[in-house]
Amino acid sequence: MERRLIECVPNFSEGRDARVVDAIAGAVAATPGVALLARESDPDHNRSVITFAGPPEAVHAGALRAIAEAVRRIDLTRHEGVHPRIGAADVVPFVPIAGVDLEECARIAHDIGRQAWERLQLPVYFYEAAALRPERRRLENVRRRGFHWLRNHLEEHPPDIGGPSLHPTAGAVAIGARKLLIAFNANLATGDVEIARAIARKIRASSGGLPALKAIGVRLESRGVAQVSMNLTDFDQTGVLQAFSAVQREAARFGVDVASTEIVGLIPRRALDEATARHIKCENFSADRILEQRIEAALSQVGDAHPAPVARRPESRPR
Amino acid sequence: MERRLIECVPNFSEGRDARVVDAIAGAVAATPGVALLARESDPDHNRSVITFAGPPEAVHAGALRAIAEAVRRIDLTRHEGVHPRIGAADVVPFVPIAGVDLEECARIAHDIGRQAWERLQLPVYFYEAAALRPERRRLENVRRRGFHWLRNHLEEHPPDIGGPSLHPTAGAVAIGARKLLIAFNANLATGDVEIARAIARKIRASSGGLPALKAIGVRLESRGVAQVSMNLTDFDQTGVLQAFSAVQREAARFGVDVASTEIVGLIPRRALDEATARHIKCENFSADRILEQRIEAALSQVGDAHPAPVARRPESRPR
Repeated sequence: MERRLIECVPNFSEGRDARVVDAIAGAVAATPGVALLARESDPDHNRSVITFAGPPEAVHAGALRAIAEAVRRIDLTRHEGVHPRIGAADVVPFVPIAGVDLEECARIAHDIGRQAWERLQLPVYFYEAAALRPERRRLENVRRRGFHWLRNHLEEHPPDIGGPSLHPTAGAVAIGARKLLIAFNANLATGDVEIARAIARKIRASSGGLPALKAIGVRLESRGVAQVSMNLTDFDQTGVLQAFSAVQREAARFGVDVASTEIVGLIPRRALDEATARHIKCENFSADRILEQRIEAALSQVGDAHPAPVARRPESRPR
Repeated sequence: MERRLIECVPNFSEGRDARVVDAIAGAVAATPGVALLARESDPDHNRSVITFAGPPEAVHAGALRAIAEAVRRIDLTRHEGVHPRIGAADVVPFVPIAGVDLEECARIAHDIGRQAWERLQLPVYFYEAAALRPERRRLENVRRRGFHWLRNHLEEHPPDIGGPSLHPTAGAVAIGARKLLIAFNANLATGDVEIARAIARKIRASSGGLPALKAIGVRLESRGVAQVSMNLTDFDQTGVLQAFSAVQREAARFGVDVASTEIVGLIPRRALDEATARHIKCENFSADRILEQRIEAALSQVGDAHPAPVARRPESRPR
């Protein structure tokens, strides 16, 4: 059996005091079954992002510990930073990775929200796939008023759970469920950033291009090349192969090649395996056709010495 | 850490007596750490193929048990069947799957060969990547003389280990190491088998097409469609994306589409992951960029609560 995995990528309103971020990351890492994958702090935004993953139960426990630690240690009344924010634990998204769907992540978000209010007296907004009101699907709509405004106007923007006032020092929290995002950049064989910008405008969803694709054109000064920098917000709708083909096609109109691409951060296996299978129109692909998966499944069946045989591999047929 | 895995696909000269095949498959399945993936018997060829996999040490032990069981139970002096054969355990190839290279599989083949002679008095020929003589790389060259000829002419075709005579009832064994083979078929949107044959002739390696690609054109009577049936004998040279593109391009010359494709049996993960990464010219792809792999690695590091963070995922950059 494939392991059930989800990811949590909470954003905290502290990016300068390493002791605070250490304490939050430590609370996550100390949670049994949780894999701490990344942490980054931005002093200008005065904000940190922690990425962790594991089985749903473990990530659930880790998220609660992290939120509690942030509530304990971050005082928003004394916070400065350019990034919009409503809480010490500002944004807490749950992301399905393997064997878990978006609806289950939304249920986890709702359960965490209930406990954040009951245990920590933290009012909660739900966003994206966890939103309880359509206008709160977009995180921007939940967060843009900010902590200082909400302190005096909470009744005008009531939380989904909790109230009638914010937590005095930790504000509120936005908890959501969303699909995994793939950051993917295509480097053009030109230094002309206007070509990258024209390609980005053509292919992105906001201007009628490919669905679930965000794109901008940038110039990488260190390498002297123009780059189409993309986010794939739902790789089942637009995957890396389609995004690549679109950039390649539009670049060809300018007589320019795609020199190379790069994946930023991590990419889920399914975005590669299933992308290939779909591209070649494979009618019988599923994850259990992957050799290693079959081997792992067989090896984990302790005591079952005779698993069902698989389809015949006609080793010597074609010449 | 990725698990080290190899596969063994031995062919035995018995395809009619299920008790004999059961005994051989049972010897494999009872080997600790071995996953029995498939078994098939062909009564016309009077031949069976067993597919198993696992860590190298486990597969090594399973292969020896299987060969010993075949030597004990199969008497080639009384064998009838249309398929060429030299031994009870006729052909024993080792195939790298993950974290193991072809050279290591060749070393395993050589070690098994030494033990087959010392413990079972079975003369051994090595073929493909395990061949000790260039003319024995091709299995056909090793096997075509057959058991009955070899019984009286072994000195004219001396084994690489053992001799001067065959095992009286079990003959000899061909032990090899080779890359994994992917069986991949493309169904055309036509019933005209001549088009499938023309495409196969154009794209296969033997007529100057894509390297490590075998192809024939066949007609699937039950579905009324023509099919290009392919074996990819080295998917690092020609993978499923390239094979698909070649069929699609050649089919287009006849004004015909590829309706669908199918993978026969199992496909290694790398043939999908790396195929996509290569197709999109990804310059920074490696298996540890795969999210699930990173999670598994982090979760398996018991006690290491603070793994190194990964590259930043710029979540909100493109619009």
